[in-house]
Amino acid sequence: MATNGNTTNNHKFDPNFTAAVIAATGPKASPRIRKVVGSLIQHLHDFLRENEVTVEEWLAGVDLINQAGRISDDKRNEGQLLCDVLGIESLVDEITYKVATDAPDEPTATAILGPFWRKDAPRRNMGDTIVFEIDNGDNTLMSGTVTDFVTGKPIEGAELDVWHTAPNGLYEQQDPNQPDMNLRGRFTTGKDGKYHFYCLRPTSYPIPDDGPSGKLLQLLDRHPMRPAHIHFILSAPGYKPLVTQIFDRRDKYITNDSVFAVKDSLIVDFEPFKGDPKADFKLDYDFRLASYEAAEKDGANGATPMTSSA
Amino acid sequence: MATNGNTTNNHKFDPNFTAAVIAATGPKASPRIRKVVGSLIQHLHDFLRENEVTVEEWLAGVDLINQAGRISDDKRNEGQLLCDVLGIESLVDEITYKVATDAPDEPTATAILGPFWRKDAPRRNMGDTIVFEIDNGDNTLMSGTVTDFVTGKPIEGAELDVWHTAPNGLYEQQDPNQPDMNLRGRFTTGKDGKYHFYCLRPTSYPIPDDGPSGKLLQLLDRHPMRPAHIHFILSAPGYKPLVTQIFDRRDKYITNDSVFAVKDSLIVDFEPFKGDPKADFKLDYDFRLASYEAAEKDGANGATPMTSSA
Repeated sequence: MATNGNTTNNHKFDPNFTAAVIAATGPKASPRIRKVVGSLIQHLHDFLRENEVTVEEWLAGVDLINQAGRISDDKRNEGQLLCDVLGIESLVDEITYKVATDAPDEPTATAILGPFWRKDAPRRNMGDTIVFEIDNGDNTLMSGTVTDFVTGKPIEGAELDVWHTAPNGLYEQQDPNQPDMNLRGRFTTGKDGKYHFYCLRPTSYPIPDDGPSGKLLQLLDRHPMRPAHIHFILSAPGYKPLVTQIFDRRDKYITNDSVFAVKDSLIVDFEPFKGDPKADFKLDYDFRLASYEAAEKDGANGATPMTSSA
Repeated sequence: MATNGNTTNNHKFDPNFTAAVIAATGPKASPRIRKVVGSLIQHLHDFLRENEVTVEEWLAGVDLINQAGRISDDKRNEGQLLCDVLGIESLVDEITYKVATDAPDEPTATAILGPFWRKDAPRRNMGDTIVFEIDNGDNTLMSGTVTDFVTGKPIEGAELDVWHTAPNGLYEQQDPNQPDMNLRGRFTTGKDGKYHFYCLRPTSYPIPDDGPSGKLLQLLDRHPMRPAHIHFILSAPGYKPLVTQIFDRRDKYITNDSVFAVKDSLIVDFEPFKGDPKADFKLDYDFRLASYEAAEKDGANGATPMTSSA
């Protein structure tokens, strides 16, 4: 299915057109913009020529994009979701956070942020629950240690920002029946780098498919389901923030995520748990962070603002 | 500046990722969707890897797309305008309407529709003006013949749908001071295939640059100007509709159109004109249409709806 770089002049259309469009970029554009937008123009034009895309097909695509913008607001980012369905967020995530593979060990793998994170989730005390007004969930005690991936030492003052869906498959901002900020919380490690809190064993759920992303999935004959997962952002002074998800091994969509975010090292086991009246399952997971120093040394690709040169 | 098809496995990222995303397409997707979206995924992923696009850069792009949708409505199509700035509409126009070059003659070249066409422009009588409530324009008598490009015979009943901007650079739907449907009209040829009407010698103008397209132009250090032009759609029973524009040779932006629509055969001369109190300039232009029969024979690429197989 891969197309083989049918570039510039190997076609029956105006051989100078794409170069002229790219050459219109002015002298004051930043080097990064010149490179990235120039390459985008080349790839999009090659795509259009290789497939002999018609005006009607292109306008259908424009309509999809305009619909995505119109349906987006503070609580929904449909442009992002369209990209997710095409594997773009997962790929960009891999590109951005890749650390050289010749490192002696590796930090925890990353996964996409997704469109449901909210800033300023409540700070909670270690050992608290993030579950409120839900009585049909599989209560889980999650615990582990946050360490430096190079030294193996525990990290004090690491913040763990966690969020997941309710058993009905909805995040709290999608669901008027949940209290604000339900199933979200931020926990901060002490000297031993350890954390523990109560959450639910999550459930698989469909991405919102009542907009253009759903239309695209339908055209592609694909389902909208995501395997059950819990989202995290780990951050600590001197360390690169880690955006990731962990996935339930026994979920039926584990090999078939609609947004392509699953990685082997992020698949976990929820173990049945006795002796704690507040939990039916136990989950242990350690997070390994990369210090900025280590990341720099290992050639990790730092984020570059779109408007700056690189 | 052209990138040279750095495809699938020639990079340091997961070599199986893109193939897995493409392979997720289900068995009931139409062959055309499978081909086009598969190729789009391949090109976008190659683009992201080749440029090592970061999450932050990608999110800036998503934001641009969401903004485009939000600013779009019945009178403005910003998703289309973003494409225009990248040369996409002009290229898709070329692809869609290209007729095999071994034809004995060629029909009139096409140009992009642009975002300002309105359906149901008023039907007017031959010889009428399309200019109302404007007294600072260069009045022009435009005339010519609509013919079959193969036989050279005049076409009876051809409809010429024309629209252009006022001297202030605004189309009537952008300008509350112009009457509805100003500078627009539809004329129908008689047996001789001839047409004539009064319009203005048009002026160059900027595309709307208060939205994401303007932001993109700014990042690219480009101007938003279009050379002065008049839009047309020609249609007649049994003939392929012709969407085109003609451009004023003396315009300073004639070699530097912000949406890359100018073609040599569409550049015209407005000649000073004496003896008609209603016109300061005269413009002659003949339109040559392709019948569906001729278009079929010469291998022209018909439009294919996005949801059908091809």
